Amino acid sequence: MNTPHRRRGAQGTPRVRDLPTRIDATGTRRETDELGAVEVPADRYWGAQTQRALIHFAIGDDRMPKAIYHAYGYVKKAAALVNGREERLAGWQADLIAHVADEVVSGALDDHFPLYVWQAGSGAQTNMNVNEVISNRAVQLVGGVLGSKDPVHPDDHVNLGQAGNDTFPTAMHIAAVRILHDPLLPQVSLLQEAIAAKSRAWYDVLKTGRTQVQDAVPLSVGQEWSGHAAQLSDALERLRATLPDLYQLAIGGTAVGTGLGAPEGFGPAVAREIATATGHPFKVASNPFAAQSGVDALVAASAGLRGLAVPLMKIANDIRWLASGPRCGIGELTLPGYAPGSSSMPGQVNPAQCEAMVMVCTQVLNADGAVAHAGTQGNFQLNTARPLVIRDFLHSARILADACEKLRTYCVEGIELNREQIDEYLARSLVLVTALSPEIGHDRAGEIARKAATEGTTLREAAIASGHIGAEDFDRIVDPRKMARLRHG
Amino acid sequence: MNTPHRRRGAQGTPRVRDLPTRIDATGTRRETDELGAVEVPADRYWGAQTQRALIHFAIGDDRMPKAIYHAYGYVKKAAALVNGREERLAGWQADLIAHVADEVVSGALDDHFPLYVWQAGSGAQTNMNVNEVISNRAVQLVGGVLGSKDPVHPDDHVNLGQAGNDTFPTAMHIAAVRILHDPLLPQVSLLQEAIAAKSRAWYDVLKTGRTQVQDAVPLSVGQEWSGHAAQLSDALERLRATLPDLYQLAIGGTAVGTGLGAPEGFGPAVAREIATATGHPFKVASNPFAAQSGVDALVAASAGLRGLAVPLMKIANDIRWLASGPRCGIGELTLPGYAPGSSSMPGQVNPAQCEAMVMVCTQVLNADGAVAHAGTQGNFQLNTARPLVIRDFLHSARILADACEKLRTYCVEGIELNREQIDEYLARSLVLVTALSPEIGHDRAGEIARKAATEGTTLREAAIASGHIGAEDFDRIVDPRKMARLRHG
Amino acid sequence: MNTPHRRRGAQGTPRVRDLPTRIDATGTRRETDELGAVEVPADRYWGAQTQRALIHFAIGDDRMPKAIYHAYGYVKKAAALVNGREERLAGWQADLIAHVADEVVSGALDDHFPLYVWQAGSGAQTNMNVNEVISNRAVQLVGGVLGSKDPVHPDDHVNLGQAGNDTFPTAMHIAAVRILHDPLLPQVSLLQEAIAAKSRAWYDVLKTGRTQVQDAVPLSVGQEWSGHAAQLSDALERLRATLPDLYQLAIGGTAVGTGLGAPEGFGPAVAREIATATGHPFKVASNPFAAQSGVDALVAASAGLRGLAVPLMKIANDIRWLASGPRCGIGELTLPGYAPGSSSMPGQVNPAQCEAMVMVCTQVLNADGAVAHAGTQGNFQLNTARPLVIRDFLHSARILADACEKLRTYCVEGIELNREQIDEYLARSLVLVTALSPEIGHDRAGEIARKAATEGTTLREAAIASGHIGAEDFDRIVDPRKMARLRHG
Amino acid sequence: MNTPHRRRGAQGTPRVRDLPTRIDATGTRRETDELGAVEVPADRYWGAQTQRALIHFAIGDDRMPKAIYHAYGYVKKAAALVNGREERLAGWQADLIAHVADEVVSGALDDHFPLYVWQAGSGAQTNMNVNEVISNRAVQLVGGVLGSKDPVHPDDHVNLGQAGNDTFPTAMHIAAVRILHDPLLPQVSLLQEAIAAKSRAWYDVLKTGRTQVQDAVPLSVGQEWSGHAAQLSDALERLRATLPDLYQLAIGGTAVGTGLGAPEGFGPAVAREIATATGHPFKVASNPFAAQSGVDALVAASAGLRGLAVPLMKIANDIRWLASGPRCGIGELTLPGYAPGSSSMPGQVNPAQCEAMVMVCTQVLNADGAVAHAGTQGNFQLNTARPLVIRDFLHSARILADACEKLRTYCVEGIELNREQIDEYLARSLVLVTALSPEIGHDRAGEIARKAATEGTTLREAAIASGHIGAEDFDRIVDPRKMARLRHG
Repeated sequence: MNTPHRRRGAQGTPRVRDLPTRIDATGTRRETDELGAVEVPADRYWGAQTQRALIHFAIGDDRMPKAIYHAYGYVKKAAALVNGREERLAGWQADLIAHVADEVVSGALDDHFPLYVWQAGSGAQTNMNVNEVISNRAVQLVGGVLGSKDPVHPDDHVNLGQAGNDTFPTAMHIAAVRILHDPLLPQVSLLQEAIAAKSRAWYDVLKTGRTQVQDAVPLSVGQEWSGHAAQLSDALERLRATLPDLYQLAIGGTAVGTGLGAPEGFGPAVAREIATATGHPFKVASNPFAAQSGVDALVAASAGLRGLAVPLMKIANDIRWLASGPRCGIGELTLPGYAPGSSSMPGQVNPAQCEAMVMVCTQVLNADGAVAHAGTQGNFQLNTARPLVIRDFLHSARILADACEKLRTYCVEGIELNREQIDEYLARSLVLVTALSPEIGHDRAGEIARKAATEGTTLREAAIASGHIGAEDFDRIVDPRKMARLRHG
Repeated sequence: MNTPHRRRGAQGTPRVRDLPTRIDATGTRRETDELGAVEVPADRYWGAQTQRALIHFAIGDDRMPKAIYHAYGYVKKAAALVNGREERLAGWQADLIAHVADEVVSGALDDHFPLYVWQAGSGAQTNMNVNEVISNRAVQLVGGVLGSKDPVHPDDHVNLGQAGNDTFPTAMHIAAVRILHDPLLPQVSLLQEAIAAKSRAWYDVLKTGRTQVQDAVPLSVGQEWSGHAAQLSDALERLRATLPDLYQLAIGGTAVGTGLGAPEGFGPAVAREIATATGHPFKVASNPFAAQSGVDALVAASAGLRGLAVPLMKIANDIRWLASGPRCGIGELTLPGYAPGSSSMPGQVNPAQCEAMVMVCTQVLNADGAVAHAGTQGNFQLNTARPLVIRDFLHSARILADACEKLRTYCVEGIELNREQIDEYLARSLVLVTALSPEIGHDRAGEIARKAATEGTTLREAAIASGHIGAEDFDRIVDPRKMARLRHG
Repeated sequence: MNTPHRRRGAQGTPRVRDLPTRIDATGTRRETDELGAVEVPADRYWGAQTQRALIHFAIGDDRMPKAIYHAYGYVKKAAALVNGREERLAGWQADLIAHVADEVVSGALDDHFPLYVWQAGSGAQTNMNVNEVISNRAVQLVGGVLGSKDPVHPDDHVNLGQAGNDTFPTAMHIAAVRILHDPLLPQVSLLQEAIAAKSRAWYDVLKTGRTQVQDAVPLSVGQEWSGHAAQLSDALERLRATLPDLYQLAIGGTAVGTGLGAPEGFGPAVAREIATATGHPFKVASNPFAAQSGVDALVAASAGLRGLAVPLMKIANDIRWLASGPRCGIGELTLPGYAPGSSSMPGQVNPAQCEAMVMVCTQVLNADGAVAHAGTQGNFQLNTARPLVIRDFLHSARILADACEKLRTYCVEGIELNREQIDEYLARSLVLVTALSPEIGHDRAGEIARKAATEGTTLREAAIASGHIGAEDFDRIVDPRKMARLRHG
Repeated sequence: MNTPHRRRGAQGTPRVRDLPTRIDATGTRRETDELGAVEVPADRYWGAQTQRALIHFAIGDDRMPKAIYHAYGYVKKAAALVNGREERLAGWQADLIAHVADEVVSGALDDHFPLYVWQAGSGAQTNMNVNEVISNRAVQLVGGVLGSKDPVHPDDHVNLGQAGNDTFPTAMHIAAVRILHDPLLPQVSLLQEAIAAKSRAWYDVLKTGRTQVQDAVPLSVGQEWSGHAAQLSDALERLRATLPDLYQLAIGGTAVGTGLGAPEGFGPAVAREIATATGHPFKVASNPFAAQSGVDALVAASAGLRGLAVPLMKIANDIRWLASGPRCGIGELTLPGYAPGSSSMPGQVNPAQCEAMVMVCTQVLNADGAVAHAGTQGNFQLNTARPLVIRDFLHSARILADACEKLRTYCVEGIELNREQIDEYLARSLVLVTALSPEIGHDRAGEIARKAATEGTTLREAAIASGHIGAEDFDRIVDPRKMARLRHG
């Protein structure tokens, strides 16, 4: 049998030079593929198929995220190492591909991955882009002729045992896992901690509650913020729970999931290498047909992102409204003034970080819808809306992470309580009457509240005037601290 | 040639009895179709295909909206009249079908249309339900044997010249046009007028403006509400503009748009009859292939519904927030108290109508998304998500109409201004400082505002104390009425 | 201290009669609330607040799902038992409420819960509906005067220690858990098993693969269907993983989460009773403020529903396309003919069950979007889009369950393979050439495929004619069974 | 009164130099705003507020679209000209600002507009970025000191009579109108024409119809494509109908819509200038409060974009499926082979342009959802999700335009019919039996079809064998051309 490895083996081991990741050339270079020759920019590593795709799919400015290419670096390296170990590639070929793949992972070759998001739904062009760049960079490193595909061929060597149909889903999962681990989960955690710190700091500060935007019975600011903190930690937990499915990789399935063209055990072996290199417990998907015909793990993880956006939007809105004013709004919170007010209103500080967060969350919610709809669009052995899915996922994760960081740094950490306002609301709220209900009955309590409302008095005045309760009993019973059931203090 | 009409002609004209729309029978009756016999409830007019569909598609509780059947009544009547006029049906057959179709339109046969929304994507089962019911009711009226299909056959007579593929889209457009004309457009108009009346009534009442939920320069309550009124009248205009495309009917295209099985000129003639009967300017679709393979006119009309929901949600939220309090919120508006407060808070009136509207709008926005996604799901000569499209469209139109009526009756019309609160905000707002900017410069104005903010004084006090402006000039310049540019008073 | 219990205690224990759940009366009955008196239908148990809400919120035909009322039955019973045990209610009062609550759970009082979905965003009206019905039914059972609220008061007894703000979220979780356990999870499981059975039955049947709707390398029908089965079991797993958060109940938080008005330990005790009664491990929410101000657990569970809809839509579409034809489509599958074809095409069987499923999934995806958007709409201590959230959740769960049952029964189980067609495709596919690539190289393999394509021959003919490979080698290498890597046979 | 103009007037008219749009400097420059001083890159024109925003809102990689800045160029120029004409600015100031604004429009200053999308919801930072850049560029042109704001101040001169709250919505509408006019409407029209040309070219080619992906009665390829063409021209018409509302500009409303700070007639005058400069009939909004508190015109225009995406997705899918195969699919169409097949399947051409279009449409549909949801998020006098709205709108318009161009160029124009396959399907379809129904009755026709189906014969054979019809009659009646009702030939 005439394997690629054996055909190459006769050439001996070429010397790998130490060259910077660039091509010093101008003009164009001839590259070829099945359809013939194309001119590519001489200072780029990519080949004919990338160049064609760059023209055919020049749709918008949306480029395939670099994170996908970095993830592909792990895939190509792992495949090369396994192929080398099992002698389908010469050792030096495997090492050379692995070396270049490390450069891909590092971002050093980012300028050579120019393709657009809106390409084939399989991500095929991006796989070929990676193959071509690794081929030419490898060729360069051993002093070969760029475009010759010799001695490292994009198909026969870099793509050996693989197909776009299994490597692209694999790269998607790797990229998703990596962005979740950094920066998303840490940034949300930092925000969650900043909020929890506020909750602790303000544990004892009593305030009026509000339900249906109407005055309600009291709670402490710390209790209120503990709700924010709990919503975020629950959402983080749910998001983390989507990781195990993302650890399952489609690698080894090749074109349709059967693994044709990949040797026995290839998928698990490559997945192990990827696990080692990334430090995440990747393994091969339990059902390769499901892994390639669906994007369900990413749909679930996208719901995890949405699960963050939902409480974040609520929290940002709460902050925005509690800081409304300064004199004609609720005004319980004072936001830090990192920016001048709007151009026409001197002295004003706007809740711009909250607004940015609200917009980010709105975007994330609808991007999540796109991911889910894309998830339905597979046919037979392949989902063909993969580039959209990973683009929207990575984008949502990124803007959520950044928005959390900015909201924390430029808003939450600097928020101060307007104690005077908070105390005044609590004093004038009629809802404290609720404390009276179990004592004097629902109807009498209502009567007192209505009396105070009509006469514009405080509840205390109305209660005593009503004759239903004495001053001393009132003060004992209508105690916001007791009403809020603060555990100590 | 042996047409259905000629086969029937020999029988002479049967007498049509005057019978109530019910079958006095118990147990079951045997009905047949291509697949054989089925038992149907003896007191129902439907036949074998409906009975099968009732079992096969018992999904949820969502029934095909009755409005679709009423619309179908118009279609079947119009088709019968045209078929009669052109002698494809005997005159008495045409008249009989027309008579029963009138009963369908009137709702008298509603109990005989039991099918679910989630059926064939073409709506085929519903078309057959109509055919079967009209057949059996006609048979009953002339003293025939129920289930015999003689002398009015569901396929050969009621469905003559038609297919589910062209009648269902036709019925969809008729139902959509009818619900827009009544109740949706009138109910939104009434709400718009109620809001416009408030705008006029409160034209002169000055208040603090708010942007980014921060205090802003003044405007009048009337100006604020004129914005609501304008948003709604613009949305109404946009929705009305979707009607002309809904007036185009697919009728005449039969199975794939070519009109096979329908005589020349059938579609336009039926559309004219429908126009006459409904009073709406229906006509045949300009391109039958587009009319059957897409649902684009309804996707556009659904965007028109959404175009109402967007400002309605904003308006409902504005009312909700301006009525927040009563003592710890913004409190500029007092909502009418049509209902007791919540069970645990005596004396409280909640903005429940606004919340209902917000939920309705949220539902409408996402139903609109379903309609649009369904619109993409056609293949070749047919869109096969039609039942979803019309169900969601009619549902959205209905809940919007009702929510507008309720918001108007139980909220908007009874809203009163809390003048004291409005005036107090205006007096203490620092943003009036904006009026000073053109006079004393942006920077000095800002200085005065900050001084007032820091020292907790009014702007007037701070301005005079600053030495940048005298009291007289201040009062002349910082005049909310002038600032709001009210045209009179 | 004058507790409700003690006020009642003097009356002694009334006798509870055995009466059917109906009121034999006509006309109207006077009921009262804080705002005064209202006439309600004399044969209904509800009171004044329900009657008002029935008028004020008559929006569309969407009624609050009965499942919410049944869930409320568990809540009210559990609260009564705890209140009775701790002597806040007389023992007989607790038992009486518990007895009526059992009737609520059983559905016997369903006709007395008429309210609409689009009410206050807190669900307050529905809570009062339950309180009023239980009160009047209890009053009836002890021979009291309907509307007297004596000796079981809707507020003071039925709602004791509770608020709409904590009971409605509690009922939402109970209803959600129950519908997931029955019918959703079992019905999806049955469909998953039917698909897995097909996968096993057809394990050995080789077919052409298809990616990007283009011919691809072979796999077995069993492998293809194993992918469907795996997608569904993964989705089931993800949905089940949302249950633990649904087991957390808001009960005990009362109005704002602090529990004011409920005794210490009330929430956990009630949750334990609910757990016992339902058989599900409910417990009190870890953070009551999060539980009331958000609906995050349901947003996550809704994503779980969507996670089913995504592969179900893909699977339904695959079946639809593989059954396309019968003579001008792909035609690999034959669907069971449970219904006649469309009215104009004799002999045709349409994939209507698949279309129904596609529509259901489209609806579910967009309803999930509504749930998520509703989840963002809380302010401060309360989310006020709760009725929408639970309505859409229960609706999606129900139509998914039913659609799975129908797809299984009337489609999947009866699907047969069109072996002739499957074999013919496999024989004429050019993609088998892929097997040659590792043997004769990518370029030569491509050349053979192009030759066969151009000349309209089979791949075998072209391969042999190319001279690159002999017939024997071809047959050995290009073996679909080997290519599909079937493990045995 | 001390207007900015009069303060400046004493300085005389400075000489405007002819300098390239760049600053030859390295390191940083000190810029100031209300909050103090900041270092900005010395080679950038922007000032302190932009620099702060660049740090505070570094969220993701999404930059405010350049189209917004170009639109802002029109706004600032028009405002300057009106201010100059009415002597609020010195003539040379107005001319200088107008000159720099022309540079903004041209894109020459694009590198100086670095801000992110996710900023204040009002777009305030972007307005200040424009003001600062125009100020410094103007200062440079007259030899002043960068950062001195002298003699052209960002607030007092460039922003004179304006606020972010009215200029940002104004710029949004200008940018939206411009992208619709170029490239979107022309590119969709070109695709529509290419499709219409195919429709004409293939007018006579008869083929089998398909409904519910089942074989249906014949039509011509030209008829089928005429449906595509009609869907697109209808969608274009609907999109064009959204332009008039986009022509309405918020300019003149300043902070809250009252126009405080802008002279009488300022808005209309500026709108006229913008109309003249752009060639589009812009005018001032009929209700400024609606214009600033909503984004309804853009929500409607976004529905117009979606209205294109819906049929484009359907058409792309139709092409994809009709080109499925080549040997195991439907195979009626042959796509042009502009790209090699996937890496593992030699000789294959994939429908990648169709897939790209499907993904683009999916993205557009969900972005439209984001725009609509953002449209609900206004409060009081301002919508604060404007950056999201315009970003998503411009993005959708752009990717739709480009995807249409690419689909046309690299797919539609090169599509060829596989006549052999089309003819074969037509010959073997059983559905031609429909032509027999009116002649021999529905039931007999069905019988013949079933006979042919069972026996695997053609319909003609089965018909003649059935005895219901002779060969001659069959051929006369079952004539696909007549069945498709082609008008000539």
